[in-house]
Amino acid sequence: MASLLRSSARLRSVPRLSAVRFLSTSPHLRAAEKPFFPDEPTAPKVVTAIPGPKNQQAAAELDQVFDIRSLNMLTDYTHSIGNYIADLDGNLLLDVYAQIASIPVGYNNPNLLKVVQTPEMANALINRPALGNFPSSEWAGILKTGLLKAAPKGLNQVFTAMAGSDANETAYKAAFMYRRQLERGGPDADFSESDLTSTMVNQSPGSPHLSILSFKKAFHGRLFGSLSTTRSKPIHKLDIPAFDWPQAPFPSLKYPLEEHAQENAQEEQRCLAEVERLIKEFHNPVAAVVVEPIQSEGGDNHASPAFFQGLRDITKKHNVLFIVDEVQTGVGATGKFWAHDHWNLTSPPDIVTFSKKAQAAGYYYGNPALRPNKPYRQFNTWMGDPARALIFRGILQEIERLNLVENTAATGDYLYAGLERLAKQYPEAIQNLRGKGQGTFVAWDTPKRDEFLAQAKTVGVNIGGSGANAVRLRPMLVFQKHHADLLLERIEKIFKL
Amino acid sequence: MASLLRSSARLRSVPRLSAVRFLSTSPHLRAAEKPFFPDEPTAPKVVTAIPGPKNQQAAAELDQVFDIRSLNMLTDYTHSIGNYIADLDGNLLLDVYAQIASIPVGYNNPNLLKVVQTPEMANALINRPALGNFPSSEWAGILKTGLLKAAPKGLNQVFTAMAGSDANETAYKAAFMYRRQLERGGPDADFSESDLTSTMVNQSPGSPHLSILSFKKAFHGRLFGSLSTTRSKPIHKLDIPAFDWPQAPFPSLKYPLEEHAQENAQEEQRCLAEVERLIKEFHNPVAAVVVEPIQSEGGDNHASPAFFQGLRDITKKHNVLFIVDEVQTGVGATGKFWAHDHWNLTSPPDIVTFSKKAQAAGYYYGNPALRPNKPYRQFNTWMGDPARALIFRGILQEIERLNLVENTAATGDYLYAGLERLAKQYPEAIQNLRGKGQGTFVAWDTPKRDEFLAQAKTVGVNIGGSGANAVRLRPMLVFQKHHADLLLERIEKIFKL
Repeated sequence: MASLLRSSARLRSVPRLSAVRFLSTSPHLRAAEKPFFPDEPTAPKVVTAIPGPKNQQAAAELDQVFDIRSLNMLTDYTHSIGNYIADLDGNLLLDVYAQIASIPVGYNNPNLLKVVQTPEMANALINRPALGNFPSSEWAGILKTGLLKAAPKGLNQVFTAMAGSDANETAYKAAFMYRRQLERGGPDADFSESDLTSTMVNQSPGSPHLSILSFKKAFHGRLFGSLSTTRSKPIHKLDIPAFDWPQAPFPSLKYPLEEHAQENAQEEQRCLAEVERLIKEFHNPVAAVVVEPIQSEGGDNHASPAFFQGLRDITKKHNVLFIVDEVQTGVGATGKFWAHDHWNLTSPPDIVTFSKKAQAAGYYYGNPALRPNKPYRQFNTWMGDPARALIFRGILQEIERLNLVENTAATGDYLYAGLERLAKQYPEAIQNLRGKGQGTFVAWDTPKRDEFLAQAKTVGVNIGGSGANAVRLRPMLVFQKHHADLLLERIEKIFKL
Repeated sequence: MASLLRSSARLRSVPRLSAVRFLSTSPHLRAAEKPFFPDEPTAPKVVTAIPGPKNQQAAAELDQVFDIRSLNMLTDYTHSIGNYIADLDGNLLLDVYAQIASIPVGYNNPNLLKVVQTPEMANALINRPALGNFPSSEWAGILKTGLLKAAPKGLNQVFTAMAGSDANETAYKAAFMYRRQLERGGPDADFSESDLTSTMVNQSPGSPHLSILSFKKAFHGRLFGSLSTTRSKPIHKLDIPAFDWPQAPFPSLKYPLEEHAQENAQEEQRCLAEVERLIKEFHNPVAAVVVEPIQSEGGDNHASPAFFQGLRDITKKHNVLFIVDEVQTGVGATGKFWAHDHWNLTSPPDIVTFSKKAQAAGYYYGNPALRPNKPYRQFNTWMGDPARALIFRGILQEIERLNLVENTAATGDYLYAGLERLAKQYPEAIQNLRGKGQGTFVAWDTPKRDEFLAQAKTVGVNIGGSGANAVRLRPMLVFQKHHADLLLERIEKIFKL
């Protein structure tokens, strides 16, 4: 009977409306498509308390030389596969956190393995170039067939960096240089004597009192410039000197959206008005506005396409750059390749930054004037990493081969529908469910969030949180409907604990 | 005859005093030890003008998508070997720049190739962990057999980063957190309500007006915090907002050192006095002093061990941290593994940062109080890269196997002696020769520096500059006496052009 139902499910592609309730009594009835990882287990396996004895012992050893107070679990990557993460004690968890949203195509993806076993990869690893001075003859080709193939619409240039923080900071640097160039009257205008001398003592005008405007609860990284735009939690910022830069409120929307349409639109207008006021009035003039399409570390806070179009309009109007930080939202997670593709902007962002699921980092831009007017202004020794660029190319090929962006859109809809049903059943446990139509980039608030995350491990799921109360789902792009079924089933199990 | 001379030279290990003059008429007589790369060519090969036609064409193609104004040469890494870098036109240059001082054990080193072809490396590349949350079970072992084996004396902990800039910035963050912790009365003292609220708007006391003291002409990186301590050239800093942090003068020594001993000692005392004055008086209190053992980008500026001991004493006295930036000097280049090993300090630096030749980055520390008092204060998604840590371990094994630090010390002495002879012959062209006893970390000033660097290519050598007038030699650790002979010969050839 069970097997008959499975094959009949295989033929149907529409989500079954009563799946979740049904599943809780009949675990074998699941949405079944062809699995991307045929060797993945059919369910998580929990064989010890977590952390188990081997994990505890290994953690004590690591603690001698490395700060482990943020340790989640010591991982056995050799036995991790696809959507499943293994620990040292033989536990195998469905992983919907995915290395803080940074694993795109599954653990031990066989096609990525092929990419890293090529002579080209070995060459990139053992002969690491200073890319700004001595790029390899293949670099243009690697960019064109890789990073630039993924470039957002309207942007055709890339500056490569190492991770999210420096991707954002180099973007900010580009914005400041662009702004001062405009003020000087264009790329051919010389620096003044006063610019040249004052910058050597970190003073204006050479080191100008310009600013980047970011939003409350934003997260853009943890180095000094990026941290000055990060407004997620005090613990991220305490004791670190910061620039006197402005923050605008980010819309605080009410859910379900359909029931609060007018109120939410007003809230977004209020925030936009405050952005415009700050651009006009803030004492350190604003060179750029930076925004995440979905505030991720800050609690999975969403805004509508109309809000982002409004930001684009205001920044255009005041000749301020519009930087979209797609470090966490980019590369397919929201069911479009870039989250800002959901907005249908009338003109593209000036700069889009990326990292995480790209496994490479940097920023895209289109306007040639965003290349600083002289060499060595935007420069460092490595300027990124060709090895990581090759991996990103491999990820793109895998995304294309398996239609992973579409998969994420469809799986996300399916997952969201299941969570909506659960939210009706457990309205205390799932509040402010959000991320509809945003792929698997889904979150909700729950009263005892950290307890929930710990319980999730005991039922075989690795989940992360964001903000103060949110459970955030960040599965990989290879997360499929049958994984969604397992996840929904496990979540319900926690509610029943 | 030539071959007889070669074999006789092979038997002798003492440098021949007249080598250079002799060489210019008899190029086959060279210091000969067993080459580390048996397949290296015996001399550079220049077959076209540089850049040649293929390079020019490829550069134009790259320019469409990538800023190439800092391009030095497009490189054929497949045909580069050991100390020789190949371009697209078949030119093969002796490389004493080595990717801005970042290649340690030669292009296409066969043992590094083995390291990157292991299953362990493939695993690290395709399953990149969020190291702070999900380190692999092997991470402690990789640290102990790799990064920590290289740890400076007295330091037994490491925080891993991505490159030099964020290695320094995370070190600064550690210094600020440590300082505020002391001010609060220890690790158990809570943040005040005012700390928590003010930091969210980037204001003091939560985001304190503390500073890092650096030196004039210093280079510590190009992100916002590191750039605020960089004082090398206006072009590195212009238009980028900076923190109001102090700079002290770095000693400006006169050469030859033996002839200016008293004057130089006075100059160092003057600089130390100014450091102490700034620590006592600067309006934004100093949490740490950061210094390069040899100012590298800033023009290869040296100071004596006494100067650095003085810095250590002043920082101890005022309870300010002493950060040594070994990004460019570290990993053997000065003939000791760490350049600060030359100083015989009475107590170790508080923090030592590294990158470049390590092919991995981060900072070492010893005092457990430099671990911030709560988790997630010093944190980011990737926190370094296990793949690069494996490469560093491979580099360390190669350094040990071939005694490369000793090789660099001995080759450096040999090279320096040759340059001293040339300086006597061409006093206009080699001024302020410096780096005696500092391995191959050698530099001199020359009137038309950029012209010299361009001419070097035409005679088959890839050399870099530093500061305004310096030629800096930054060969790899596999640079041997016979390479030094070739280099000296080529340099003389340029002087004769």
